[in-house]
Amino acid sequence: MTKIAVIGAGSWGTALAMVLADNGHTVNLWGRRKEQITEINSRHTNERYLPDVLLPNNIIGCDDIGEAVKDVETILLVTPTKGIRDVLGQIKPHLKGPVLFIHGSKGIEPHTSKRISEMIEEEIPESKREAVVVLSGPSHAEEVCHRQPTTVAVASYDEKAAHKVQDLFINQYFRVYTNDDVIGVEIGGALKNIIALGAGISDGLGYGDNAKAALITRGLAEISRLGTKMGAHPLTFTGLAGMGDLIVTCTSVHSRNWRAGNLLGKGHDLDETLEEMGMVVEGVRTTEAAYYLSEREDVDLPITAAIYDVLFNQKSAKLAVDELMGRGKTSEIGELTDILAEKLEEGNSPF
Amino acid sequence: MTKIAVIGAGSWGTALAMVLADNGHTVNLWGRRKEQITEINSRHTNERYLPDVLLPNNIIGCDDIGEAVKDVETILLVTPTKGIRDVLGQIKPHLKGPVLFIHGSKGIEPHTSKRISEMIEEEIPESKREAVVVLSGPSHAEEVCHRQPTTVAVASYDEKAAHKVQDLFINQYFRVYTNDDVIGVEIGGALKNIIALGAGISDGLGYGDNAKAALITRGLAEISRLGTKMGAHPLTFTGLAGMGDLIVTCTSVHSRNWRAGNLLGKGHDLDETLEEMGMVVEGVRTTEAAYYLSEREDVDLPITAAIYDVLFNQKSAKLAVDELMGRGKTSEIGELTDILAEKLEEGNSPF
Repeated sequence: MTKIAVIGAGSWGTALAMVLADNGHTVNLWGRRKEQITEINSRHTNERYLPDVLLPNNIIGCDDIGEAVKDVETILLVTPTKGIRDVLGQIKPHLKGPVLFIHGSKGIEPHTSKRISEMIEEEIPESKREAVVVLSGPSHAEEVCHRQPTTVAVASYDEKAAHKVQDLFINQYFRVYTNDDVIGVEIGGALKNIIALGAGISDGLGYGDNAKAALITRGLAEISRLGTKMGAHPLTFTGLAGMGDLIVTCTSVHSRNWRAGNLLGKGHDLDETLEEMGMVVEGVRTTEAAYYLSEREDVDLPITAAIYDVLFNQKSAKLAVDELMGRGKTSEIGELTDILAEKLEEGNSPF
Repeated sequence: MTKIAVIGAGSWGTALAMVLADNGHTVNLWGRRKEQITEINSRHTNERYLPDVLLPNNIIGCDDIGEAVKDVETILLVTPTKGIRDVLGQIKPHLKGPVLFIHGSKGIEPHTSKRISEMIEEEIPESKREAVVVLSGPSHAEEVCHRQPTTVAVASYDEKAAHKVQDLFINQYFRVYTNDDVIGVEIGGALKNIIALGAGISDGLGYGDNAKAALITRGLAEISRLGTKMGAHPLTFTGLAGMGDLIVTCTSVHSRNWRAGNLLGKGHDLDETLEEMGMVVEGVRTTEAAYYLSEREDVDLPITAAIYDVLFNQKSAKLAVDELMGRGKTSEIGELTDILAEKLEEGNSPF
């Protein structure tokens, strides 16, 4: 059994800490707020994020990041994308030998458009990291901590590291599949939050399941187009970290990005929505990042562009969705085949 | 404006008749039951299938199929798969010149494993049919008849016919995309009902959205594997008639296949479930058809096989789902890439 540091005591970090603890590992769960850590250690709860859940005793709360990562060989990062570089900067001075980095965060850094594994590679010198592994998939924290059946993908360029992480997490209720497409798994996990905002907006406007299913379907095509252009394997987007995560995020009331979208669809503006949510809504910053990426990579992302306008240019949510539904294209697989044909012409088989 | 016969006055037939009527066409809506037809013509309602919906005046109920198809150039079939050949046999003697056949039914014939367009081609001589067009997509009838935004695909080997059908149906709330993959659109529409039974079973057992998303994701991979083997275009399954329809059917309370699965998951057996439903549950017979197809085509369909065992071999629903969740494969895209690699080796690009 291993000792593992989980950096980030929100709902997902705590749920993943529970899986590791269920598997017999000792977990140092780091969070910034002293009262939260005291609650974790004294009452074994984390009420704000996971109400009515009792944490196993082998989860130890830490508010000192140096203490949390001391003598561990594995660090799991589950902080909001915005805080990743800061947290890595705090961890770095405490690292002695190379450490296995896993992350379960879902976002892209605005302006730089970096994925989270890229940020880890930039902030932690090669001598201090054994490998970087991404964990992603359709996994509401609220269900994982109730030990409901859940499946995720773990992706790494280092196959051995991916299998190591699979072994750490896998158990009866938590199934872990390996994957070698780091870019695809990270892009799928990040961009689905944009589509979830859109699905929430559609529901908030009072549109039905037919409209939402169309939006999700077109949304996955959009994610696949951008991801493939960035070097991802197109099939990744039909898997757990693509379609699977997208479905769960767009159709479940647990999803914060859906809930934020729902408030926008009901007529609240961005400031009101974020105030009402009181938690990080990754999709907002990811929309910004993807909007710039679409310009840089010259890929058409109509849903992202529409949501960008709703978030940042005061466009009416109804007008944005109505325009998306009425788009000109009348042959549905035209766009994707264009991209794939292009890749085949370049001599790169997409498979 | 055209005069169109809609054969089948269930919820989907009636909803499609409403779209056509909204577009100014005159619709002969055929149903077997005299009282239902009287209700449609006198009160302009179809309460059993679409409660609280007022039908436009240009929908004319007919209980005489010869009268319904008299002098029409277009026939839309929307009966349960089981009744297709019988209804075609009744229509045939009344046909004078070639007619455009459209169908909106979703199933496969057990034992013969025929798709619906194949049945139409077998029952109606070539001289009496202009073309056959399939209409499918994420489209709950309950939402369409309330004019909620909806998108569908229409597929035909005859491009002109597909465009003609697009023109008949398209309007502000009903978006129609053309597609040339008849096999893919029919297979996607039929097989999603099996996965919807599975999603209902998972929900009925009390499992959460994570489990259901995994099932839907693996389900689409399964549909894609069989469909590709039968000659479909793999990308069709990522579109409206594949993923889109699958999502709506698996996540909406409107879906009868989901509701039937939900009863099975709660411990009812097949007979009790069908009695409680009181409507045709296409997924049951489709499971049978797909089970035989998987043997004939030598394609592994684990979800279909598990649901077949629950339906016909008294296997416990819980055991079936638990076995599916715990399957051995640990590298997620292995299976699909195998199939695609095989196709590439044969010299047939899948795209």
